[in-house]
Amino acid sequence: MTDPWANSAADPPSAFGTDLHLELNGSGLRTGLMDALREAVRTGRLVFGTRLPSSRSLAADLGVARNTVANAYAELVAEGWLTARQGSGTRVARRAEPRRAAPAAPRTRPTRRRPTYSLVPGSPDLAAFPRTQWLAAARRALTAAPHDAFGRGDALGRVELRTVVADYLARARGVYADPERIVICAGFHHGLMLMAQALRARRVRAVAVESYGLDVHRGLLTDAGLRIPPLSVDERGTRTDDLAQLRGVGAVLLTPSHQFPTGVALHPDRRTAAVDWARATGGLILEDDYDGEFRYDRQPVGALQVLDPERVVYFGTASKSLVTGLRLGWMVLPEELVPEIVAAKGHGDWMTSALEQLTLAEFIASGAYERQVRSMRLRYRRRRDQLVAALAQRAPGIRVTGIAAGMHAVVELPRGTERSVVEAAAWLGLAVSGMARFRHDAADSGQRLPEQDALVVGYATPSDSAWAGALDALCRVLP
Amino acid sequence: MTDPWANSAADPPSAFGTDLHLELNGSGLRTGLMDALREAVRTGRLVFGTRLPSSRSLAADLGVARNTVANAYAELVAEGWLTARQGSGTRVARRAEPRRAAPAAPRTRPTRRRPTYSLVPGSPDLAAFPRTQWLAAARRALTAAPHDAFGRGDALGRVELRTVVADYLARARGVYADPERIVICAGFHHGLMLMAQALRARRVRAVAVESYGLDVHRGLLTDAGLRIPPLSVDERGTRTDDLAQLRGVGAVLLTPSHQFPTGVALHPDRRTAAVDWARATGGLILEDDYDGEFRYDRQPVGALQVLDPERVVYFGTASKSLVTGLRLGWMVLPEELVPEIVAAKGHGDWMTSALEQLTLAEFIASGAYERQVRSMRLRYRRRRDQLVAALAQRAPGIRVTGIAAGMHAVVELPRGTERSVVEAAAWLGLAVSGMARFRHDAADSGQRLPEQDALVVGYATPSDSAWAGALDALCRVLP
Repeated sequence: MTDPWANSAADPPSAFGTDLHLELNGSGLRTGLMDALREAVRTGRLVFGTRLPSSRSLAADLGVARNTVANAYAELVAEGWLTARQGSGTRVARRAEPRRAAPAAPRTRPTRRRPTYSLVPGSPDLAAFPRTQWLAAARRALTAAPHDAFGRGDALGRVELRTVVADYLARARGVYADPERIVICAGFHHGLMLMAQALRARRVRAVAVESYGLDVHRGLLTDAGLRIPPLSVDERGTRTDDLAQLRGVGAVLLTPSHQFPTGVALHPDRRTAAVDWARATGGLILEDDYDGEFRYDRQPVGALQVLDPERVVYFGTASKSLVTGLRLGWMVLPEELVPEIVAAKGHGDWMTSALEQLTLAEFIASGAYERQVRSMRLRYRRRRDQLVAALAQRAPGIRVTGIAAGMHAVVELPRGTERSVVEAAAWLGLAVSGMARFRHDAADSGQRLPEQDALVVGYATPSDSAWAGALDALCRVLP
Repeated sequence: MTDPWANSAADPPSAFGTDLHLELNGSGLRTGLMDALREAVRTGRLVFGTRLPSSRSLAADLGVARNTVANAYAELVAEGWLTARQGSGTRVARRAEPRRAAPAAPRTRPTRRRPTYSLVPGSPDLAAFPRTQWLAAARRALTAAPHDAFGRGDALGRVELRTVVADYLARARGVYADPERIVICAGFHHGLMLMAQALRARRVRAVAVESYGLDVHRGLLTDAGLRIPPLSVDERGTRTDDLAQLRGVGAVLLTPSHQFPTGVALHPDRRTAAVDWARATGGLILEDDYDGEFRYDRQPVGALQVLDPERVVYFGTASKSLVTGLRLGWMVLPEELVPEIVAAKGHGDWMTSALEQLTLAEFIASGAYERQVRSMRLRYRRRRDQLVAALAQRAPGIRVTGIAAGMHAVVELPRGTERSVVEAAAWLGLAVSGMARFRHDAADSGQRLPEQDALVVGYATPSDSAWAGALDALCRVLP
């Protein structure tokens, strides 16, 4: 233990006040002294056990009343910074001695080198976010909002947003949506989390999932204590006709418009099979309509929800149509499920910002949302066409599928090459995902579709300026 | 089953197209026809089983090519809206027939009559939200942000926000805060939820709580499967010295600066006792510093966290200093806990908006946050003084406590009167909470503080214009 006051001749008490940069102006004296002492302890300039000068000597040194120093010491003792004991004076209290870490060196998470280009699926073109229009919507929303709009809202979410979302979904996606059965959530992930909670409360033990999908969604369900038996995927989409053979399944999670990642639209027979299963068993269909707005080659495939709004939960999100960093999504619920989701939400809105809900409501109501969707649809379609053309020219043996809609395509690869292509891409500074990354762990058993080596190419991900480079890098790594 | 086409002489097919408001302009013909048909089914104008006119007759009626109608029918069959069977023609498919509910009549949640005044604690003055400065911060943040700021961030939250929060907490609350051990969350509720998850993963079974507090926090912990043994509260704050007697407790949830709702500051001995317990048992202290910024009569009580940053988790929030509808808070974590909370968050930021994080970072960095806190501190202090003065004059027998800090006061009542006073207030249009509302269910056993009839008066809650009326209503209901 070091005690700077032990050799106080060499290091006189007068250095103390100087060293602490005390600002001794007016009534702030005691405050300033306390702040300086706290800071000195926090930064480690005064370590555990250090004995402080007596209040008398420090007061003399600083030219202030002794009581000022004594009071400051007493308050710091009360706050636990200092200890005062008969005979041993006032000392820095025992406490952990945190070092202020260099901010550049996060210890727990090593930084990875960022790739030059990314074609990893799941992100829209972030550079296309309409900042000006968004800010204009925020200004209108914040100017018009009543004061109590800034409080915590009810569990369904702001009614302004639910109303325009209901209109939009009916118009654009054919969804049967009543504002009173819409619940706003912080994106699909949050919605699925609430759903998993409500299913558990219903004593559901298993949710069937597609044999290809996002592992983060599967993980969320298993973390909630649910089993996730897989349904295989073929050229007509997910084998919902197999649902009847699964035991104890209370719900099924589907991407009917554009299966993620294979890109197949769910065949009408399979839609009927899913709804028939739900009606026969009392099960629920969870429809993840993540990119339903982006369809290129034919009319939009309607949402599955319209086939039976009392058995299908529809999930939509602004993460793909706008940007991922905006955590806002919506669930359209069977009427009987509304109170259960409200309960899972904790009977209040603890997650989604009222300000941002009001801004999105204004953004949709003004037509800016649909203009943005149209503009992005053109942009993504052009990129898809360029992808198909570039591959036809530079990798003519390679098939591209799942391109009728969405923001990604499946680029098939010769058997056994997927992993080496992904690694070669990484070496070239191109981040891209192999199909294996999306495969359900247990998907092998009963998998009717032979495993296909492929890349899942998110052509929406790059900015316009990075797109040509990303496409070129992709063509160069293909066999 | 009704079939409008059965009596097609009285209701000729030509009415069909008219009724559907088809816009037959150019290439949008098939689209328009499909949209109109979907809409008609959705709204119930065409019900299950309705037979549609043949494609030939509808085409003739509309003056379009027969193929256009046939293709539209075929696609709607594919989407599941219609069925086509040999011999029975094209009909509306079987589906649930949702009625479009009148939006004014939410069936599941009866609307309560709003009280005229509210003194329910827990909300800041929403009318004081600095809209203009917030918008200015949003404009600067959105203008300056790189594109990838609009993507989903890492699990810790935006580094811009973590950096300014670390500075602010060190300065204003004496917290030892390194940006790398700060995790941004959607307010205290979300933070506590993550913490409960991390504790469960550590196999913790019980979290001690204060015998008075918010039931929503207790409910959150029990929902996560944790037991919540209570610690009683006396005039020195929560009896942390009782922690050693509780078995199997892995953490304790405290409000040390200003106990909610009793308003006592945790005594230094009790602070030491809590830290000693945590060190001896490896337990964690969860410090809910919900209103630490608002202290009136003495120097700020430092955060407990500084006593041992490796054993105390510090929770702060913008819900009280700004508005509740802004779902942003922060946790300052022991270093070893960071990866566990990151895991609980799902290794990504799924909840908090990047845009709003950037805006708050800019708002803090510009000094607007501290200006707002100072301005609200003056306003709340003035109201507290008015409350105390009004009660001294109009209800002189009544004691007010917990007033050294915060946004609420405890107004003591004669024994046995609390419930009738709360009910009388409701009749007068004043919403106010009784102390009983915050009492732990199991708090009676071992409760050393006699139960006190009291009101918990949130004097921050009304707007300036409603404050005088609220105060007057309060004085009128007091015995």
